[in-house]
Amino acid sequence: MVADNGQSSHVFMLFKCLFKRLQDQRIVVLAVESRMEGSLAMYAVVGQKADIMFINLRETLEELNSVENAFNRSGFAKFVKPVYSYVNIVELSSYLAPPGSDPMQVPEVAARLKPILPKAKHICFYPMNKRRMLNDNWYMLSLEERKNFMRSHGMIGRNYAGKVKQIITGSVGFDDWEWGVTLFADESLQFKKLVYEMRFDETSARFGEFGRFYVGNILTPGGLTELLNV
Amino acid sequence: MVADNGQSSHVFMLFKCLFKRLQDQRIVVLAVESRMEGSLAMYAVVGQKADIMFINLRETLEELNSVENAFNRSGFAKFVKPVYSYVNIVELSSYLAPPGSDPMQVPEVAARLKPILPKAKHICFYPMNKRRMLNDNWYMLSLEERKNFMRSHGMIGRNYAGKVKQIITGSVGFDDWEWGVTLFADESLQFKKLVYEMRFDETSARFGEFGRFYVGNILTPGGLTELLNV
Amino acid sequence: MVADNGQSSHVFMLFKCLFKRLQDQRIVVLAVESRMEGSLAMYAVVGQKADIMFINLRETLEELNSVENAFNRSGFAKFVKPVYSYVNIVELSSYLAPPGSDPMQVPEVAARLKPILPKAKHICFYPMNKRRMLNDNWYMLSLEERKNFMRSHGMIGRNYAGKVKQIITGSVGFDDWEWGVTLFADESLQFKKLVYEMRFDETSARFGEFGRFYVGNILTPGGLTELLNV
Amino acid sequence: MVADNGQSSHVFMLFKCLFKRLQDQRIVVLAVESRMEGSLAMYAVVGQKADIMFINLRETLEELNSVENAFNRSGFAKFVKPVYSYVNIVELSSYLAPPGSDPMQVPEVAARLKPILPKAKHICFYPMNKRRMLNDNWYMLSLEERKNFMRSHGMIGRNYAGKVKQIITGSVGFDDWEWGVTLFADESLQFKKLVYEMRFDETSARFGEFGRFYVGNILTPGGLTELLNV
Amino acid sequence: MVADNGQSSHVFMLFKCLFKRLQDQRIVVLAVESRMEGSLAMYAVVGQKADIMFINLRETLEELNSVENAFNRSGFAKFVKPVYSYVNIVELSSYLAPPGSDPMQVPEVAARLKPILPKAKHICFYPMNKRRMLNDNWYMLSLEERKNFMRSHGMIGRNYAGKVKQIITGSVGFDDWEWGVTLFADESLQFKKLVYEMRFDETSARFGEFGRFYVGNILTPGGLTELLNV
Repeated sequence: MVADNGQSSHVFMLFKCLFKRLQDQRIVVLAVESRMEGSLAMYAVVGQKADIMFINLRETLEELNSVENAFNRSGFAKFVKPVYSYVNIVELSSYLAPPGSDPMQVPEVAARLKPILPKAKHICFYPMNKRRMLNDNWYMLSLEERKNFMRSHGMIGRNYAGKVKQIITGSVGFDDWEWGVTLFADESLQFKKLVYEMRFDETSARFGEFGRFYVGNILTPGGLTELLNV
Repeated sequence: MVADNGQSSHVFMLFKCLFKRLQDQRIVVLAVESRMEGSLAMYAVVGQKADIMFINLRETLEELNSVENAFNRSGFAKFVKPVYSYVNIVELSSYLAPPGSDPMQVPEVAARLKPILPKAKHICFYPMNKRRMLNDNWYMLSLEERKNFMRSHGMIGRNYAGKVKQIITGSVGFDDWEWGVTLFADESLQFKKLVYEMRFDETSARFGEFGRFYVGNILTPGGLTELLNV
Repeated sequence: MVADNGQSSHVFMLFKCLFKRLQDQRIVVLAVESRMEGSLAMYAVVGQKADIMFINLRETLEELNSVENAFNRSGFAKFVKPVYSYVNIVELSSYLAPPGSDPMQVPEVAARLKPILPKAKHICFYPMNKRRMLNDNWYMLSLEERKNFMRSHGMIGRNYAGKVKQIITGSVGFDDWEWGVTLFADESLQFKKLVYEMRFDETSARFGEFGRFYVGNILTPGGLTELLNV
Repeated sequence: MVADNGQSSHVFMLFKCLFKRLQDQRIVVLAVESRMEGSLAMYAVVGQKADIMFINLRETLEELNSVENAFNRSGFAKFVKPVYSYVNIVELSSYLAPPGSDPMQVPEVAARLKPILPKAKHICFYPMNKRRMLNDNWYMLSLEERKNFMRSHGMIGRNYAGKVKQIITGSVGFDDWEWGVTLFADESLQFKKLVYEMRFDETSARFGEFGRFYVGNILTPGGLTELLNV
Repeated sequence: MVADNGQSSHVFMLFKCLFKRLQDQRIVVLAVESRMEGSLAMYAVVGQKADIMFINLRETLEELNSVENAFNRSGFAKFVKPVYSYVNIVELSSYLAPPGSDPMQVPEVAARLKPILPKAKHICFYPMNKRRMLNDNWYMLSLEERKNFMRSHGMIGRNYAGKVKQIITGSVGFDDWEWGVTLFADESLQFKKLVYEMRFDETSARFGEFGRFYVGNILTPGGLTELLNV
C-alpha cells in the first residue's frame, strides 16, 4: 500500500473550457469533490494552454482514478475538454533525509509527505528531468557529488522562504518526466526570480531539463462561477 | 510461423472514453474476446493520457489483427477513440540464455515466452531504446561489455522479486522503440523505486532512452461497467 | 505585488479566424478592451500559423486573466479559435542596470519597464532560450563573460535605432522559453537584417535557441473590420 | 523523364478506417486501380497507427498523383482518413553498381529497378537517414569507407535471403527522410531478427537514424471486404 | 519600404482538399488572383501532406496579407483547409554579390531579386538552417571559410543548369527556418540527384539542417478543375 509510506499521490488535470458551448447553456452544475482540507486546489491558467487546473491529492492511485471518474461523470465535464495531466507522488528529497531514521517519526517530514495544498494567489508547475548527456550525466555522478550539488541548490530555495512554497513530487515510473515542481506564491514575480536564480546553479545549468510551464491564479468557487458565468 | 519460437505477440491498445456520448446512451455492450486465461488484461489508466488500456497476447500478427477488427466492429468501439498502441513480442533476454541450449526445452524459459498476464493491482508500461549517441553507443560495445552491463542491471530487478513482475518485450522492426517494459505490482510505489534505482545503473544512466510512461489500475469486468456507468 | 517592480505582464494571444463561420453570419461585434494607450496592440499575422495576434499589457496576472475571460465571453470569440499564446513580463536587462541604483528612479528605465506598445507597421515575435549544451552552456559562464557577450550583442541592436524597436520580455517560470523578443519596424526587411546580423554574434551563434517566428502587419480597428468583412 | 532511368516511383498511403461511419452504411464500393501485376499492394496495419496501407508503383509522379486523385474520388475514400504517406523511388545502391556499366543492360539490375511487389504475408516499412552528428557523420566519410561499411551491411541482408525480401527506396528531395526500407516476409519474426542484427553493424550503430515502423498483414480483396464488413 | 531593395516576399500556402465536401457540391468557383506573370504558381502535392500548393510573390507583406484575405473570402476556401505555409523573401546570396556594387544596377541581379516563377513540371520545396552544434557551428566560421564552403556548394548547383532552377529565399526573422529552397525541374529525378550530391558537400554534410520536403506536379487551371471535378 502506498499509504505505508505516508506519501500522497497527485494528479494535475488541466482543462480548456468550451466557452462556445457554455454560451448556449448558461447553467453549470459544479460538484468537485474535496475530501479534506488541502486535498484539492483550483487555479485559472494564464494564457491559452488551458483555462482551469485542478490538483487532487489522494493516498492511492485507485482514489485518484475515482476522482477522475467522478469528474468525468459530472455535469461540469460536458463544458471542458482535457488538455494535459501529470501523475506524481509527494516525496522527501533522498539527499536531505537524516541517515538511518524512519522519516514518518519526524513530524516535519511527515508534514512534507502529506502536504496541505496552500491557498497562495499564484501557482507555477513544471516537470523536469536530470540530464544524461555525455559529460553532463547526473546519474553517473557519485552520491557525494550529487549531495553537494543538491545542497547548494537547496540553499537558493531557502532564500525564498516566506515568498515561495515549493512542493517537489516524484514521477519516475509514473509519468513522462522524473519530477514535478510546484511553486506557490502570492507575488508571481517570485517564480521568475527563483527559477532564474536556480538556472545558474550547476545542478540546473548542467543537469536540468525542463518541460512546459503552467502558471495560474487561484480560483475560489466564486471565481470559478464568475469564470463560467458567460 | 512465429509459433515455432513459442513467442507471443502483444498489442497494447489505449483508448479514451467518449464520456459525452456515453451520457446520451446508457447501455454499453462489451464483448472483449479473451481466448484463454492470461491472454487479455484491462487497466484503467491514471491521468488524461487515456482511460482504458487493453493488452492482448496472441501467437501471430494475424490473430492480433483479428482481435483489433473484432474490437472495431463491437458496440463498445462506438464509445471510445484510440489514442496509442504498441506492438511487440515476448522475448527472452539474449544475454541470459544458456549457451547452446534449445530454450523451449527449458520449462522456465518456455513459461517466460508464453506468459500469463498477471492480475496485479497496478501496471506500468513504457517503451525504450538503447542509446547510440557518440561515446554512449550501446551497439558499439562488445558482447562482453553488454553482458556485464546487463548482468548488474538484472541484479536490481531481482531485488524486487515478489514485489514487481517484469515482462520485457522486443519491438525492433515491429514498432517505434526497441523494447517495451511492462511492470506489474500490487503496490504502485514499487514502480518508482525500481525505475529510479535502475536509472543509476550504467545500463540506464548512459544507454537508456525512454518513451512515455502509462500507469494504471486493474479493471475487472465489474470495474469496467462501473467506469462506464454514467 | 508585481506592480512594486513597476513591471508589466504581457500576454500574446494568437487566433485563427473561422472564416467559414463568418461567411454565414456577417455581423461581428468586436469589443476588445484597451485600458490605456499602448496597452493593446493588434496585428494580422502573415502566413497560416494564425490570422490575428493580440498583445495585452497589464500590471498583474489577475488583470491578464480578466482580459482573457472578457475576450472569451465576447461575441468575437465565437469566430476565432486560439492557436498560441505566450505569457511574459517586461524586464530590464540585468547586464545593463547601473550597479546599486533603484531602477525606478531613473526615468528611462521606468519607461522601459512600462512600455507603450508602438504603432509600427510590422511586428516580429519569437521566444528564445540561452543554450545549455556541453561546452556551449550560457549558465556556466562567469558574470564577466556574460556581460561581455551581452555588450557586443547590444551594440548590434543599437545600430538599428530608429529602424527597429525591441522589447525584451522575461518568461523564465512563466512560459516555455526563457525570453520573448518582440521587434517593431515600419520596414519589414529590417527584421531579417537585424536577426541575421545578430546570429553571427557569439551570444546567438553559440548560445541562442529560437522558437517559432510570428510576423505580422498592424491592424487598425478599420483593418480588422475589413479582414472580417467577408 | 523518370522512365529513362527505368526507375519506379512509390507512394505509401496509410489510412484509418472510419468504422463508425461504416457501421451506418454497410455497402462499400472499392475500386482500387492496379495497372499491372505487382504495381499495387494492400496490407492491414497492426496496431492503431493506421488500418490499411496501400503501396502504389508508377513510373512518374504524374501517374502517382492520378492514382491519389482517383482514390480521393472513389466511394471508398468516404470511409477512411489519410494518416501518413511516403513518396520515394526505387533505386539501385550506388555502392553495388558495377563501375562503368549501363545498369539497364544488366537484367538483374533492371528487375530491381522495376520490382514486382511480392505477395508476402507480412510487411515492415520504415524511413531512415544516415546520421550527420559531429564525429558520426556519414557524409564526411570517404567513398572507400562508405563502401566498406555498406559491404558488411549488405552481408547481413544476404543471410536472410529466402526469408526477407528488401526493397530499398530513395527519397532524398522527395520526402522527409533519405531512404525508405520495405521488408517482406512470410514469418514476421524475421523482421525483428534482421533489423536487430543490423543494428550492431557499424553502418546502423553509428550512422542509422530511424523513423516510425509500420508492420502489417497482407490484405487480399476478400480480406479487405471482411475487414470492412461491419 | 521593402520595394527599395527590389526584393519580393513569398508565401507558400499548402492546403488539403475537403473531397468529402466537394462530393456534395460539385461546382467550385475559383478566383485565385494573379497580378502579373510569374507572381502565382500552383502545384499538386504528391502524397498526403497536402493536395495543393500556391506560391504567391508580392513586394510587401501587406500585399501578401491581402492575397491571403482574398483567398479566405473566396468560395474556393470553403473546400480546402490550410496545412502549412512559409513566409520568405527572395534574396541574393551575400557570398556572391560583387563587392561595393549596387546590386540593382546589375540586370542579372535585379532579375534574381524579382523572379518570374517558372512553369516547370515539378517543384520541390524545403526549408533549412545552418547548424550551430558544438564544433559544427556555421555562424562561428570566419567569412573567408564560409565563402569557400559556399563557392564549392554553388559549383554543384551550376552542374544542374538547364535541369534544375533554384530559388533561394531568406526567412530569418520571417519564419521558423533560416532559408527556403525551391527547386523547379521538368524531370523529377533531378531533385534527388541534386540534393543527394549536395549532401556530401561539407556545407550540407556538417552544417545543413533540413525541414520537411514538399514535392509536386504543376497545376494548370484546367488541371485544377480536373482535380476538383469529383
